Order: sequence, then structure tokens, then C-alpha cells
Amino acid sequence: MRDKILRILKEEKGVVSGRALSSMFRCSRTSIWKHIKALKEEGYGISSIPRFGYRLYNIPDLLLPREIKEELSTKFIGHKIYYFKETGSTNDVARDLALASEEEGTLVIAERQTKGKGRIGRRWVSPFGGIWMSLILRPRVSPADASRLTLLSSLAVCKSIKKVVGLPVFLKWPNDVLIGKKKVCGILTEMDSELDLINFVIVGIGINVNMDMNVFPEGLQKTATSIKEELGKDIKRIDLLKSLLEELERLYLLFTEGKFSWILKEWKGYDCIFGHDVEVATLGEIIKGRAMGVDEDGALIIKGLNGATKRILSGDVRLWWRQGDSNP
Amino acid sequence: MRDKILRILKEEKGVVSGRALSSMFRCSRTSIWKHIKALKEEGYGISSIPRFGYRLYNIPDLLLPREIKEELSTKFIGHKIYYFKETGSTNDVARDLALASEEEGTLVIAERQTKGKGRIGRRWVSPFGGIWMSLILRPRVSPADASRLTLLSSLAVCKSIKKVVGLPVFLKWPNDVLIGKKKVCGILTEMDSELDLINFVIVGIGINVNMDMNVFPEGLQKTATSIKEELGKDIKRIDLLKSLLEELERLYLLFTEGKFSWILKEWKGYDCIFGHDVEVATLGEIIKGRAMGVDEDGALIIKGLNGATKRILSGDVRLWWRQGDSNP
Repeated sequence: MRDKILRILKEEKGVVSGRALSSMFRCSRTSIWKHIKALKEEGYGISSIPRFGYRLYNIPDLLLPREIKEELSTKFIGHKIYYFKETGSTNDVARDLALASEEEGTLVIAERQTKGKGRIGRRWVSPFGGIWMSLILRPRVSPADASRLTLLSSLAVCKSIKKVVGLPVFLKWPNDVLIGKKKVCGILTEMDSELDLINFVIVGIGINVNMDMNVFPEGLQKTATSIKEELGKDIKRIDLLKSLLEELERLYLLFTEGKFSWILKEWKGYDCIFGHDVEVATLGEIIKGRAMGVDEDGALIIKGLNGATKRILSGDVRLWWRQGDSNP
Repeated sequence: MRDKILRILKEEKGVVSGRALSSMFRCSRTSIWKHIKALKEEGYGISSIPRFGYRLYNIPDLLLPREIKEELSTKFIGHKIYYFKETGSTNDVARDLALASEEEGTLVIAERQTKGKGRIGRRWVSPFGGIWMSLILRPRVSPADASRLTLLSSLAVCKSIKKVVGLPVFLKWPNDVLIGKKKVCGILTEMDSELDLINFVIVGIGINVNMDMNVFPEGLQKTATSIKEELGKDIKRIDLLKSLLEELERLYLLFTEGKFSWILKEWKGYDCIFGHDVEVATLGEIIKGRAMGVDEDGALIIKGLNGATKRILSGDVRLWWRQGDSNP
């Protein structure tokens, strides 16, 4: 009923009388007033005009589940949402939910993370203004196929930023989304699996959206950026999030239908290190050579100085920027 | 102090006077009596002979931590043990412990599992008399390397059965240990990881030891066996378990030192499907061909009917037993 009241206020764009609402929902005006009060507590700007009624003058810049679900065109992603004003790490929350059998497509979202996680135990700065989300997926594939999910996710972020914000975006293997040469999004994919079958995957996505650069530690300011910084103004985070969920689902369905090659083809269109000389730090060694793109398994192909090619399944890429290059 | 009293009783092999014990430990005879009572409750057979003292006449056939640790020559595996008379699944207990930062080498062991787990959500029958254990490992490797841990574990089981029991044992890719053509052990490796780095691995090992065949459901009796069934008598489970822990550690240290090829060489010596025609059910398809052994990544090599070879990372192998073959 609260959702319906809100919808009427949104559609009306003017004052709606309390009496009209109470007769519409066949309840007391006190009951209507209680719902209005709850909506105001959630952050909605609603003015109460004595003898006239209620008027919605502001929808809060929050990633509220009811706002996310409004006109969301997905089949299952984001149909169930756990929303937090603040939490430790959305990936940790999602993992606990998944261990407790929460279903595929469930979204965990927080306005702020106090213990945001990056890859390999790194910290991820997650103040208010970003999109910090984790998605529970249960693909019936082997763990070896999971790296494809990271490529898929980074492509979804890339495409939704391009579509909603209009900025030029690039992908850097394995999971960085860049604007210019700076990272605007990080993806942390975690999984729980047997050796040959995934139990569940948590795709954690962090996008720096409406954040000023001074929220980042100094060391990060050279390598990280936000959409606000690049665009010069705030955007509506909810629009970006909804577009991202829709894009994620479209690509995930392609993936489960065995059409990863389609995804890969799109991914390659944004690959900013192709043809560049790079250094890749893997668990065991540092590999130098020229990046030759990504193969069907999501592995990076490096052509070494001796001409031999190598497939790299995981690692951190550092580019040898050549002078005169204006863009990766 | 309880451990020390037990050790004295074990070494003495006769009656030890309560007075001698109380003066040795500088405590009251009542205090000694309380420890004796607790040991009896754990299952130790200790007779109290008035005016003479105590005599140990039976060490229970239980996998008690203090018995496991006695003269165990490992550096870290099994130094910390969680012991249960009964639990749901030792893998689940170990996972919870690992999520709570429990250290590498920690062992979870149960005399009986009420919800024993096999691969891919299958059930694993786990009555009293078997060895049902889970080991927490934290190798600094990528998930792609984890299948090597299964090969390593099955080899450790194989070698310890051969050493302690003396029966001929075989390995069937990826993780079955066979006596004759029947399965005597199953291994369930589960992991929690990022895409490129393992957080922890739980190696679950179930060995059918002192069990009569009638404890198995009828369907299993054709494919499963126990050491008791094959040997015609019970064995001391604790000896097998200790040998297994030592073998596991030896092989695991080789693995972490990058010497997997040594392990693989040993593994191949027990490979019972090499050269046989097999059918492998993978997630996507059924592959027929001749088994050509296992490669460096732990993948099974199959030579298809058309002569082409295929690497299989995961699947269930079914042999086409040829008539006249007496053994796999």
C-alpha cells in the first residue's frame, strides 16, 4: 500500500488530498498519514499542506529497492533486493545469504561500505555516492568457467556507463573499467564451489559515481576516478544501476546459453591494452610482452619478446605507456 | 595432566597405584580418581582395583584427538583437531571454521556423519567404523590449481591404505580410490576463492574402513566396498588415519614447493583406467574414447575414436569393462 501511495504521489505531480487517499484505500486518514511519515523517514520529500493534502517534491538520491524495481525490465536479476544504508561488505552479506540458499539474481546493495573489499584482500574505498552492489548467481558451470563471468560483468558496467552517461569507457583485462587511463569501477568475483561445479558466485561491483576525488586516499588519486569527476556533475545513480542490472542479465543469459563468443566479441571492442606492451604480475612471475587480446576462456594472450605466446589466466596488468599515446 | 596419567597407564601395562599417581602429580587421590573417571567416560577401559590402583585394559576404537596426535610426525596437519562423536557433515563444520579464520592444517573428524556429502550434492553414507574427515588448507594458488589437490589427496589415501593394510589399491580419475573394482574412498574438495586466488580449500575424505557391507544401501553394494570387507577383519583405524595425515602433508609440501610432477608420477603408478576405453560424463556432454592418463594440470586425456585427443577437467568416468579383464 505504501508503494501505491507513492506511485499516486509521483503520477499526480501536485497535491493529493488525504481524504481522497483514505477513500481510495478504504482506510483511515491516520493510517494514510502513518505511511506518509514512513516514506518521509526513508528520505522522500513530501510536504503536508493542511486542508489540502500531500505533495511529493523530492525523490531521494538513494538506491532504494522500490525505486530500483520501478520499470526494471529484468526477468530475475534484482527482483529480490537487500538494501543497507551502511554495511561492512556487500560481498560478505551476499555470501552469507547464498550459503543460506538465497536464490539466483538476488541483489545486495549498500549506500556505504565500511569494509569494502578489493581483489586479493585489498581495501575498496566505498563512501556515499557510489554504487556498491553484489549479485548472487548460480550458474551450472565449472569453476574454470567463472572468469568469463568477470569479463561479462565488466562489459555490462562498461556498456551501461556508455549508454547512461555517454562517456567513452575502456576495459582493461581482467576486470577494470577505465575512463581515460583511470579506474572507475572494480569487480570482485568470489565463488564457493566443488572442484568441478560452482555452488554459487558472488559478483561484487563497485562504481565510483557521484564522488569527489578528495574522498580517495592520495595514492589512489593518480589511478582512480569517478563519473562525477569526468563528467563535471552528478548523475542519477539509480538510472545507471537499472541499466547495469538489465545489461548484466542480458549478457548472463547469453553466457548460460553457451553464447560466450558473442560476449567476447563485444568485450574486445573495448579492450584498451590490445597491441600494447604490458607487464603482467601473476602469482608466480612477472611476464612481459605484447597484449594480443583475450581468448574463449577469458585468458589474456601475451606475445613474449621471443615471439612465443602465453595464456595468462590471472594477474595484474601494468602498461608500458608509450610517449605520445593520448589514450590507452 | 589427564594426558600424562593416560600415558603412564599405557607405558606401565600393569596396575599403577593411585597413591603413586597422586604423589607424582602432587594432587589429591580424589583428583586422580576424577581424571580416571573422565577417561573412562571417553571410552578408555580402566579397571579400578581397590588398594592396588588402576589398570588400562582397553584403548577404545575411536579417533580421539589425543590418540591421533600421539607420535604423529607431521609439521602442521592435524595439530589442531575438532572431534565429534556425530556431526552433520565434517566439510560443513570445516567450512564454518575456515570462514572464521581457522588455520591451515586443522582437522575435523567425526565418528559418524548424519548428512555426509558426496560430489555434486550426492549423499555419502557415513556410519560408525569409517574415517570421515575434513582438512582445511590455504594454498596460495589459483582455483585452477585446485584439481591437483584432489589428485594429491587420493594418492595419499591410496598409499596409506597400501602401507597400513597391505591391500592392492587403485586410483580412478579424478578422485576415487578402488580396491578391486569397488570404491573404498571418496574425496570431496570444496573451495572458497576469488577468481584468481584461493581463500581456502576443504579436502573432505571418506574411507570405508571397519564397515559391514549391509550398512550400504543395495544400490551401492555393487560399486562400494570397505577395507574390512576386502581384508576379512577389522583394522585399527587410528593407524590408517595417522599414516594418511603424514602422507597428505608430505605430498602437500611437495605441491606447495612446485613439485607437482613428482606427485603426478606417483599417481600414474596407480592409475587403473590408463589404456582402457571409457565414457566420461561431463557437465555438457558424454565423451567416449581411450584414457591416456593425466596431464600436469590434473586433466584426463582422452583419445577419441577419431584419433584426436581431448583434455577433460571434470567429469564422471565409466569404464567399458572388457570381457576377460580380471581387474581395472
